Amino acid sequence: MTTRPSEAPSGTTESDQITREELQLTTRNHGMLLEALRYDVTPLGMHYVLVHYDIPAVDEPTWQLQIGGQVRRRIQLSLADLRARPRIVQQITMECAGTGRARLSPRALSQPWLHEAIGNAEWAGTPLAPLLDEAGLLDDVVEIVFTGLDRGIEGGHDQVYERSLPITEARREEVVLAYEMNGQPLPPQHGLPLRLLVPGWYGMTSVKWLSRITAVSERFEGYQQTGAYLWRQHPDEQGEPVDHIAVRSLMIPPGIPEFLTRHRYVERGPCQLSGRAWSGSGPIVRVELSADGGRSWTDTLLCQPIAPHAWQAWTSTWQPPGIGDYELCCRATDAAGNTQPLQPVWNLGGYAVNAVQRVPVTVRG
Amino acid sequence: MTTRPSEAPSGTTESDQITREELQLTTRNHGMLLEALRYDVTPLGMHYVLVHYDIPAVDEPTWQLQIGGQVRRRIQLSLADLRARPRIVQQITMECAGTGRARLSPRALSQPWLHEAIGNAEWAGTPLAPLLDEAGLLDDVVEIVFTGLDRGIEGGHDQVYERSLPITEARREEVVLAYEMNGQPLPPQHGLPLRLLVPGWYGMTSVKWLSRITAVSERFEGYQQTGAYLWRQHPDEQGEPVDHIAVRSLMIPPGIPEFLTRHRYVERGPCQLSGRAWSGSGPIVRVELSADGGRSWTDTLLCQPIAPHAWQAWTSTWQPPGIGDYELCCRATDAAGNTQPLQPVWNLGGYAVNAVQRVPVTVRG
Repeated sequence: MTTRPSEAPSGTTESDQITREELQLTTRNHGMLLEALRYDVTPLGMHYVLVHYDIPAVDEPTWQLQIGGQVRRRIQLSLADLRARPRIVQQITMECAGTGRARLSPRALSQPWLHEAIGNAEWAGTPLAPLLDEAGLLDDVVEIVFTGLDRGIEGGHDQVYERSLPITEARREEVVLAYEMNGQPLPPQHGLPLRLLVPGWYGMTSVKWLSRITAVSERFEGYQQTGAYLWRQHPDEQGEPVDHIAVRSLMIPPGIPEFLTRHRYVERGPCQLSGRAWSGSGPIVRVELSADGGRSWTDTLLCQPIAPHAWQAWTSTWQPPGIGDYELCCRATDAAGNTQPLQPVWNLGGYAVNAVQRVPVTVRG
Repeated sequence: MTTRPSEAPSGTTESDQITREELQLTTRNHGMLLEALRYDVTPLGMHYVLVHYDIPAVDEPTWQLQIGGQVRRRIQLSLADLRARPRIVQQITMECAGTGRARLSPRALSQPWLHEAIGNAEWAGTPLAPLLDEAGLLDDVVEIVFTGLDRGIEGGHDQVYERSLPITEARREEVVLAYEMNGQPLPPQHGLPLRLLVPGWYGMTSVKWLSRITAVSERFEGYQQTGAYLWRQHPDEQGEPVDHIAVRSLMIPPGIPEFLTRHRYVERGPCQLSGRAWSGSGPIVRVELSADGGRSWTDTLLCQPIAPHAWQAWTSTWQPPGIGDYELCCRATDAAGNTQPLQPVWNLGGYAVNAVQRVPVTVRG
């Protein structure tokens, strides 16, 4: 499965170390501290954040959402208008499509995530489908384009962040325009005042700082659709879109960490392990645990889903046979039969790297 | 001023790139996105976070603060007890002592901050001094030790995070035990349920997840006091404690960024620049701006302080003489006469690097 090029393609690096440009991105963007897997709902400030360009300064009193394009009637809505509409509150596990990128070699030069580009928040918003109905999509509409207020330069051109969805996806009842996160107005870094939420898809789809929704009669060819978020092996391939979240699981690293290496030390005796698992392709049906780097596996106790698009908790008691070094791994399987691979599967953009987490642990006496 | 060793000392690296261990820290800890300088009070989730070990799991209903050691009477307080006491709300600008570490070469292997280890929050809590009075410090007490619940391994030993303060510092009226941040219970990553706050000192002093306050009759020699947070040039030096926040200023990078490099592009014409400045040694009296990398400077318009320990806003209109490349810098001076240096001042631990920010900008037509 792992195809690695013999030479690092343009825009990637083979270095095991992280470049200054990657560092600049990772001091801005942040992951979830893995001990936060203990919370059903990720507390504000611990959910992963990826800001492509800059967080835009939005003037809430004058901000309006425009719905237009190939529609019978254009609609403009203030935040008060949106809050007055039907409200859905749902827990959604969101993950960055670049998850695990820094586990690849060579790797694309972009945000160098390891394991932590994840979070599970309680989002409140209003469903999108009724708004599309009110606008009245014309018969030739094939996609809906979502435009944010964040601006930057990428692929050599000025960009406004934009992504599209096929109509069938945009009409799913759980697709919402969200104005609250964990019971509070969206924090600026999560899209204040309004963002799209597409449960089950990687986070780049859930456009932040939403300003326009446009019905279009041709496939949208914007940079974030055709220049990025593509699964490919070679730069000259067209590639397959990266969309649904691949099955994955994480554990809370047990014991205590050494400050610099983050290596874990646990005391001899039974060790409670727990974590979460999720997939954009349906419920999780199995989470297994290995204490020998993936050579042998035992089933963990998997909890029931708390919400259709939220992660599922799992727990297990590990009995280390004695003091010494171990490599703990967890591996999830979803109802569609997808299982996490043992090793990262290489791809040019460094997307959807869902290989099992590996946690080196020393059991001490 | 800049003394760099001819060879990288143990525990440092000369590499311009970032090690895997540094990456692990920087995907956990995070800085403030610099565009958040636009907010007087840093929104939740954007304030910098540094967690030495793991965020501890605290059971709030049973949690208690213990005040003991060389006191006439030991005190135990629940969170409700603390909330029932006199309440102070104050804006405090907090900065990590490791600020700017990754701008040094060689640099200490630790959290590789660039410019962004900063935040200004509105904290609510109860003053510490009256609690010390109620406990009744014995005559031989010289320091107060603050113990958190976070555990890890550092310096080759098991550690509980602990720092001390001289009595005179601990008794300052603005030193509080804080239970709210921006009007909400402390987020777990900021010390839920209680943390110390020492305005004007670097963040390591403001112990999170506070569990014990101990009056001691000898100087505290714990790892975070005598093994870290020392200003020194050589590993065999005893070093001077790093304590008060050095004068510093930051600007909101103008224009729009290129995604990977974060290089800025601005349009021709007048360019509004603004930012913040702060110092742990008193108010800011001057912020200057340079558009030529620090060769020439002009004064900016400095706003009045909003609170004694909060950052001060500054603003300026830059008139670029034409299209081309510029290097913008800002430089603050405090009332004690301290001014930011043009170049980072090397020290072994990578502390308090307060050299001017440098923002390369291309003015385009």
